[in-house]
Amino acid sequence: MSETNRVDFGFELSEVDPSSTPGFHGSKKDGEKALADEAKELSDQQERLFAASKGGSKRSVLLVLQAMDTAGKGGIVRHVVGQVDPQGTSLHAFKAPTEEERAHDFLWRVERQLPQPGMIGVFDRSHYEDVLIGRVRQLAPAAVIEERYEQIVEFERLVAESGTAIIKVMLHISREEQGERLLERLDRPDKHWKFNPGDIDERQYWDAYMEAYQIALTRTSTEQAPWHVIPANRKWYARLAVQRLLREALKGIDPQWPAADFDVDFEKARLAAS
Amino acid sequence: MSETNRVDFGFELSEVDPSSTPGFHGSKKDGEKALADEAKELSDQQERLFAASKGGSKRSVLLVLQAMDTAGKGGIVRHVVGQVDPQGTSLHAFKAPTEEERAHDFLWRVERQLPQPGMIGVFDRSHYEDVLIGRVRQLAPAAVIEERYEQIVEFERLVAESGTAIIKVMLHISREEQGERLLERLDRPDKHWKFNPGDIDERQYWDAYMEAYQIALTRTSTEQAPWHVIPANRKWYARLAVQRLLREALKGIDPQWPAADFDVDFEKARLAAS
Repeated sequence: MSETNRVDFGFELSEVDPSSTPGFHGSKKDGEKALADEAKELSDQQERLFAASKGGSKRSVLLVLQAMDTAGKGGIVRHVVGQVDPQGTSLHAFKAPTEEERAHDFLWRVERQLPQPGMIGVFDRSHYEDVLIGRVRQLAPAAVIEERYEQIVEFERLVAESGTAIIKVMLHISREEQGERLLERLDRPDKHWKFNPGDIDERQYWDAYMEAYQIALTRTSTEQAPWHVIPANRKWYARLAVQRLLREALKGIDPQWPAADFDVDFEKARLAAS
Repeated sequence: MSETNRVDFGFELSEVDPSSTPGFHGSKKDGEKALADEAKELSDQQERLFAASKGGSKRSVLLVLQAMDTAGKGGIVRHVVGQVDPQGTSLHAFKAPTEEERAHDFLWRVERQLPQPGMIGVFDRSHYEDVLIGRVRQLAPAAVIEERYEQIVEFERLVAESGTAIIKVMLHISREEQGERLLERLDRPDKHWKFNPGDIDERQYWDAYMEAYQIALTRTSTEQAPWHVIPANRKWYARLAVQRLLREALKGIDPQWPAADFDVDFEKARLAAS
């Protein structure tokens, strides 16, 4: 399923239909059932990843979530990442950088949030903001932004080589869908807290953002850290697609229960005598 | 249900039956169903707590989990805390203090992990270790430990007054039950990673631990930060009991959706024009 969303040579973001459900032919109801049905397996895989780290494995998973506002990053965390033991996940939402963060290289704050061995780390936004809003809103000189793509590729290569399986996801919604979701946040008092007037400001730059995504996706999708563009007009589909990417990454790691680092019979005897 | 577990004047830990299910008269199946049925309400309450903080509320929740090894702290996090949006929870497991931590007052590392407004914080072990293993294993002079009870009460009073609802839980298992659970960890290769030979060392001090708990529970159970001793030989019961404590705490806070801090009609007009 996920391979169909992967960014490879010749990829064109404009050709992806945000309402499509590539690789899945069922209904919304089927999709929701599949999401629920596969929760246990995902949870089991996560526990095994965590356990393996106690035996010395350095493997971990990093899920990078990027998207336009309202595309559903929060829903992915809640409904997919929320399916596994919270003790095995570490979440970090990257906001506009603080003064301290701006005093460092743009990757500094990212490096500090990388997942520990055994963990599934989730980035809600990431270092890609520095080539997305950074590019669209010209927050740095063009030449500086130009250098960042290569810096990101190099950084992610090191992260992957250290044992982290990197999954990069762009949740792709249409401009119309965003309009409807923003309107819902304005219509419903219980959604007002999710609305930020700045979201409408950024919406004016939609085409520039799509261009910045196209550039970032194609220049930083590598074998070790590929991008996946997931159509997200249908929330249920996007969640299922991310769940499957996580499951595939964990299957690739294939973590094993670690061997005992103690003498089982000796400890049984001590326990019996206690 | 939870009131029956609360530590008040005259409380005696030795009188609590770890296999009992105070306040709940159903079967294991009933209990598991109740836990699942109430997940949605807990999750809704959590979202409201989180939302309220965006409107300026300073309220948060802190769940402190203490227990002998194998009593089920991890299961509480997985099966109860795991019912809500991971973006609204912050977990911290306190291990033996590091050199840096030991260089500070025993509450220093705790204060740094307190939940932010809107969050449900969970402590897997806590500052109580400093009057539990600290007392049993004489990790500090008796006079120093003696002072800590009052320091804890004062610390928690300040935390509560700053807006944090504090729920302190001791999961109470019997020595026999611990023996069976440790044996299971030794019998099953997929559980070996959870076994630590040090657990058997601590088990030898069972009675001293129960005495240390009795002292800590009765000296630090206050109106603002009461202790609840939850019989935990039946895991399903302990989970249900903690879920209910969380729900009661959130009900007590009664968080409200925050009012819009923007002009809804104006933003709707901007959106329509965008």
